Amino acid sequence: MNPETALAPKAARPSADGSHRASERVREILSWYSSDNPGTKANIARLLNHGTLAGTGKLVILPVDQGFEHGPARSFAPNPAAYDPRFHFELAIEAGCNAYAAPLGFLEAGAAEFAGEIPLILKANNHDVLHDEKDPLSAVTGSVHEALRLGCAAIGFTIYPGSANSTRMYEQIQAIAEEAKRNGLAVVVWSYPRGSGISKAGETAIDVVAYASQIAAQLGAHFLKVKLPTEHIEQDEARKVYEKCAIPIGTLAERVRHVVQSSFDGRRIVIFSGGAKKDNDEEVLNEARAIRDGGGFGSIIGRNSFQRKKPEALKLLRSIIAIYSGAAR
Amino acid sequence: MNPETALAPKAARPSADGSHRASERVREILSWYSSDNPGTKANIARLLNHGTLAGTGKLVILPVDQGFEHGPARSFAPNPAAYDPRFHFELAIEAGCNAYAAPLGFLEAGAAEFAGEIPLILKANNHDVLHDEKDPLSAVTGSVHEALRLGCAAIGFTIYPGSANSTRMYEQIQAIAEEAKRNGLAVVVWSYPRGSGISKAGETAIDVVAYASQIAAQLGAHFLKVKLPTEHIEQDEARKVYEKCAIPIGTLAERVRHVVQSSFDGRRIVIFSGGAKKDNDEEVLNEARAIRDGGGFGSIIGRNSFQRKKPEALKLLRSIIAIYSGAAR
Amino acid sequence: MNPETALAPKAARPSADGSHRASERVREILSWYSSDNPGTKANIARLLNHGTLAGTGKLVILPVDQGFEHGPARSFAPNPAAYDPRFHFELAIEAGCNAYAAPLGFLEAGAAEFAGEIPLILKANNHDVLHDEKDPLSAVTGSVHEALRLGCAAIGFTIYPGSANSTRMYEQIQAIAEEAKRNGLAVVVWSYPRGSGISKAGETAIDVVAYASQIAAQLGAHFLKVKLPTEHIEQDEARKVYEKCAIPIGTLAERVRHVVQSSFDGRRIVIFSGGAKKDNDEEVLNEARAIRDGGGFGSIIGRNSFQRKKPEALKLLRSIIAIYSGAAR
Amino acid sequence: MNPETALAPKAARPSADGSHRASERVREILSWYSSDNPGTKANIARLLNHGTLAGTGKLVILPVDQGFEHGPARSFAPNPAAYDPRFHFELAIEAGCNAYAAPLGFLEAGAAEFAGEIPLILKANNHDVLHDEKDPLSAVTGSVHEALRLGCAAIGFTIYPGSANSTRMYEQIQAIAEEAKRNGLAVVVWSYPRGSGISKAGETAIDVVAYASQIAAQLGAHFLKVKLPTEHIEQDEARKVYEKCAIPIGTLAERVRHVVQSSFDGRRIVIFSGGAKKDNDEEVLNEARAIRDGGGFGSIIGRNSFQRKKPEALKLLRSIIAIYSGAAR
Amino acid sequence: MNPETALAPKAARPSADGSHRASERVREILSWYSSDNPGTKANIARLLNHGTLAGTGKLVILPVDQGFEHGPARSFAPNPAAYDPRFHFELAIEAGCNAYAAPLGFLEAGAAEFAGEIPLILKANNHDVLHDEKDPLSAVTGSVHEALRLGCAAIGFTIYPGSANSTRMYEQIQAIAEEAKRNGLAVVVWSYPRGSGISKAGETAIDVVAYASQIAAQLGAHFLKVKLPTEHIEQDEARKVYEKCAIPIGTLAERVRHVVQSSFDGRRIVIFSGGAKKDNDEEVLNEARAIRDGGGFGSIIGRNSFQRKKPEALKLLRSIIAIYSGAAR
Repeated sequence: MNPETALAPKAARPSADGSHRASERVREILSWYSSDNPGTKANIARLLNHGTLAGTGKLVILPVDQGFEHGPARSFAPNPAAYDPRFHFELAIEAGCNAYAAPLGFLEAGAAEFAGEIPLILKANNHDVLHDEKDPLSAVTGSVHEALRLGCAAIGFTIYPGSANSTRMYEQIQAIAEEAKRNGLAVVVWSYPRGSGISKAGETAIDVVAYASQIAAQLGAHFLKVKLPTEHIEQDEARKVYEKCAIPIGTLAERVRHVVQSSFDGRRIVIFSGGAKKDNDEEVLNEARAIRDGGGFGSIIGRNSFQRKKPEALKLLRSIIAIYSGAAR
Repeated sequence: MNPETALAPKAARPSADGSHRASERVREILSWYSSDNPGTKANIARLLNHGTLAGTGKLVILPVDQGFEHGPARSFAPNPAAYDPRFHFELAIEAGCNAYAAPLGFLEAGAAEFAGEIPLILKANNHDVLHDEKDPLSAVTGSVHEALRLGCAAIGFTIYPGSANSTRMYEQIQAIAEEAKRNGLAVVVWSYPRGSGISKAGETAIDVVAYASQIAAQLGAHFLKVKLPTEHIEQDEARKVYEKCAIPIGTLAERVRHVVQSSFDGRRIVIFSGGAKKDNDEEVLNEARAIRDGGGFGSIIGRNSFQRKKPEALKLLRSIIAIYSGAAR
Repeated sequence: MNPETALAPKAARPSADGSHRASERVREILSWYSSDNPGTKANIARLLNHGTLAGTGKLVILPVDQGFEHGPARSFAPNPAAYDPRFHFELAIEAGCNAYAAPLGFLEAGAAEFAGEIPLILKANNHDVLHDEKDPLSAVTGSVHEALRLGCAAIGFTIYPGSANSTRMYEQIQAIAEEAKRNGLAVVVWSYPRGSGISKAGETAIDVVAYASQIAAQLGAHFLKVKLPTEHIEQDEARKVYEKCAIPIGTLAERVRHVVQSSFDGRRIVIFSGGAKKDNDEEVLNEARAIRDGGGFGSIIGRNSFQRKKPEALKLLRSIIAIYSGAAR
Repeated sequence: MNPETALAPKAARPSADGSHRASERVREILSWYSSDNPGTKANIARLLNHGTLAGTGKLVILPVDQGFEHGPARSFAPNPAAYDPRFHFELAIEAGCNAYAAPLGFLEAGAAEFAGEIPLILKANNHDVLHDEKDPLSAVTGSVHEALRLGCAAIGFTIYPGSANSTRMYEQIQAIAEEAKRNGLAVVVWSYPRGSGISKAGETAIDVVAYASQIAAQLGAHFLKVKLPTEHIEQDEARKVYEKCAIPIGTLAERVRHVVQSSFDGRRIVIFSGGAKKDNDEEVLNEARAIRDGGGFGSIIGRNSFQRKKPEALKLLRSIIAIYSGAAR
Repeated sequence: MNPETALAPKAARPSADGSHRASERVREILSWYSSDNPGTKANIARLLNHGTLAGTGKLVILPVDQGFEHGPARSFAPNPAAYDPRFHFELAIEAGCNAYAAPLGFLEAGAAEFAGEIPLILKANNHDVLHDEKDPLSAVTGSVHEALRLGCAAIGFTIYPGSANSTRMYEQIQAIAEEAKRNGLAVVVWSYPRGSGISKAGETAIDVVAYASQIAAQLGAHFLKVKLPTEHIEQDEARKVYEKCAIPIGTLAERVRHVVQSSFDGRRIVIFSGGAKKDNDEEVLNEARAIRDGGGFGSIIGRNSFQRKKPEALKLLRSIIAIYSGAAR
């Protein structure tokens, strides 16, 4: 073996020349996480180096917590194959996703069978809609120990800025993230503003989404997941600044760019969720294009993928991935 | 001894040829729990391999927590022999049940005397009716340590989805289930929707019961216990899906099938409770037939058994067991 | 020494023949606690084998927590000698009681001086009347460590079924009882229904007291302490059963018998409190006769003893003990 | 050295004959704490054997938590030298006090400089008046670890019987006192009735103060600190007993005697606080005389001392000490 | 090397003669913290011995928690370079600040890259404005472990005296400060009165600010951070004292002096925050002059620095530093 070749950092993995070094982009991204231990860095790299987008610095993640969040019929009846937890492992693997995220039960139902085939993210808190409340609070339903036992690369956690219960959730993620990092896991935070502090429109307002990404970043998340923002501005104090500084937020790509900037000037991996199921595929693809054009790091696509028959779901996911990989416009 | 015979996986235990391998069905079921350690797998198998239904993959469990939940007179005065904790051990054993579930005190009162004669489930939280509340919360009255001390195969826990206190209960079962699994115990979750989030009729609505089974499964339970569902649909958002997808819920067997599907497409053991005491035995047996026909894994029969004199209780339990074993229609 | 004699289980300790084996009755009672470790069994036996009633299976216990519960003047001014914590140790010892129960401070003030002279029960939670509340909650004022440090045989704990705070108290006693049993202590639960869930009359209603004893037993208590019940029935659902099953509750002895039955069919030691101070001794003695005739295990006599001058207190306690021992009718 | 002399228990330390044995009175007092380990006994003795009153069984303690409780200007502006934490160490030492009690910050600011010069009591919970509330709750601001680190002899803790938060405070002191005793510290409880359970006049009512001292004693405190009581009786149930038993409470000395009796018949060290700053020194001295005449163990003098210039503060403290020592009437 | 020179305590570090001993002033300040272990003393010294003001006993600290507290656009849009976490490290280092304080995320984003270049303070609790509340409570978002992992010199914590949640915050800082000191870290407390206990004007009232500094000092903080006080007096009881004692509070310098006096007579390091962004630089500089003239220990300048382009920010910070160093008036 030629040690020179073996050590040369050249391209994405697997690269044309057979090198197994991470790509330059991945190494650049890892450099933003210089405070983390090698275990956590390796798990961040696992997520970046898996699937079709390996090495590009972009990610498409399959999240399936809707069974818990909305109930099984609303989640899986449109595509009954999705009642089976193995469906989602297979979908994520076959589509070439970077990772698969789900609550404890769904991961337990496939982690051994698909061991090593796709990086897993244990969604460690969850919420159901059988009890409505103005100020939501997710229940902690997983743990770092469970994530390690199941071979996960990361722990996922939802916070609801704007909820009267936000303090409790911030303190929960503080403790879990600290333990995760000590054990070499990566941390993914879903930051979804909701609750009595903000209006319904405010949940996706550009100022609120940018704020939500900032909070998740300050809490120490490696990966931030937020909703695609609208042009609406929720907070009066914020509106003054957006107007005075003329922050461009007219197009979706501009808003994505602002959120990425609000995430430590792009030095944190921020990905966007597709939201409710769309009837029109082109709408979903356009969102991916805007995320790409705005400098976002990728998409997390749940209902829009697993609520279709697998061939259609694969087609959509691959189209999205192609947008991020540059294989398609 | 012929090693070939000894190793051949042929039939239920005890099998005709004397093999002690688990049946194919039991091994199939165990394959769904591939993330669990051998200790937990062995305890799941203990529950499946005990009693008349051993090896069939079906279960009939005797639960006796009514003394705590409704008070002693309401529970045991109809059959005073049942005041004695030993009655229930004997009933479960003589009827050929798979397991006996009860709170700490009842188990302590017989665990040594009947050691090894029937798998035990420590019901680790309980609730009484001396203080009424809109949003119920069971008190944690047992622990993994106590279950291990008493030689139990599993820990049982009730959650009330729909209660304002559901978050607390989900977090309690998260911690207890994690500890149970680490110690090789199985986890049984009673998932009984109740509370200010849903109507009285909603407690057994088909959408709500299916949701309750999904939540228990996502929380990592090995055995799910839910109530038999009605045709009622509680949630507006769910109704749209049931109608659009034309989910068949017209007969009890269809509803059972939908709940089983909602439990990881049948890859979790879901059993059904008989509910309030029935005057008519045939009604109870018909429920068992519907559970069987819908692909359910069995029944948990409390008040309908122990509130009768033992011969009658044995007769009913054995009739139910015969339905599941195929010995009766 | 004749080993045959030494091993023969014949009579109460100390027995006529000098044997130190426990009596048959004590060994029978211990057999009900077969799940407990030898340490706990030995401490249950210590309580049963001490004082005039040693070996009979009956108990008279002196409890003195009124200083905390009602204040010092209301408790001790009628007999100022009782301000001194040593008074109560001496009274319990001289009267031939089985045990003395008190809060931390009172036990600390005599545990060394009277070490080994009488079994002690640390009353580990307490309540005062300086702040009135609808739903009482005792404060945890002792611990298993403190009980062990002071050489106690048991830990005592009060629960208030019917209080909105009952869940918290059940969870506290779960944790304390588990720790106590692990450390070889016995567990005594005072189960006193109170709170917004029940009426004033309901606190001593026969259905409620029977329920209270059942709850304490299911929580794993070795000794249950309840109030003497009245004929009143509090809960509508319970009344139906009492009437339908024609449960005899007309006399105090019948009600005691029902409570004993409700305590695992008599397989848990249930003792009764005398309640408020009586002017008429005969009333107190009649209560003891009813407890004895109903199969109760004894009395816990506080204010009716220590609020008298010592000679009178000794006279009353000894009269009660004589009723239980069979020395008097 | 003559071992006979060395061992002879003769007098207060330092005694006339040079013996270093504790005085008979101190050894008598220590005998009340026979359940404590030698470490705690030694720290109780340190408090009793320090300062002008060493060996007499009487104590005068300087407490300075007013900076936290009322703010710095209200506490120290009348005597600006008192802003400096060293002032209070010096005042307590020079006046010949038995001990100095203060919150964490004040002790940290002098514990090293004055190490070994006066026993210290870490006031481990505190309260400020910037947020008014009906039911006060002090924040835990110190710990046993901090007390040990700073070389304290005791931990101090305030409870507010009568507050809706009293349960929480009782449970906090239970935990802290247990840890303190295990580590050989003494425990001082400030028992100050306040809150929605009692009236303003009730805070110093004789029945309430006696009750407060009883609660602190039952919680296991070695030193009890209460306010000087008035003739007012707060609780109806208590009034009946005070009248029926004709408890003498007409003079301050009689009331002190009743409180001492209520503190385990005088077998716990109970000291009294001077309360608000008095304009008239004679009033303060009269209070000390009443405490002495009623059998109280001493005074805790805060604002009445440190809010004066040091010479005047020393004069007052020494006058009070002289009353207790017998050097003055 | 001449040991005489090496040991001679002469001047600020780095001193003219090349000695590395701390300055006399620094050693004087360290003498106030005589209860702390060498680790904590060394970290206090690190803060005092870094930057332009090294050795003078004065500090200018850059705090950047506004991203969390007010959102990213309101914080960084006026100077978009500040979105990048590295900007603040560089600004603090280039300006010659003593330290840089920020939440977990911001520190993680530069702690490795700028390791050893400036002392760091982990702001361990944070608050956002997406949910408004009358009684604020910051969420604990950092820990001592995280501070140690990131190489911080100190942990920072905000309390809100006057909030109904103040008890909880005091107990949190008690636990964190104890752990920090045990691990050799310094403790910085931001004491910002807010909440239902006080009026808006009261938040900066002189009596309230002085009280806030006293509370932080009593809680054991090494560094206290308060707002510049106004002449307003909030509390009636306090007003009487300010008037009776004629405490001079007419000028800002007088008020600073009073706050310093209220901080253990100047024996705790108390620094002042500049508050909202000023349009007029001279206003900021005048505040620094008043702090200096009143004996304050320095400024903590956030928005007034990082919301400008770096050259302007550096200019302002250096002007402030010059005022404290004596290089400017």
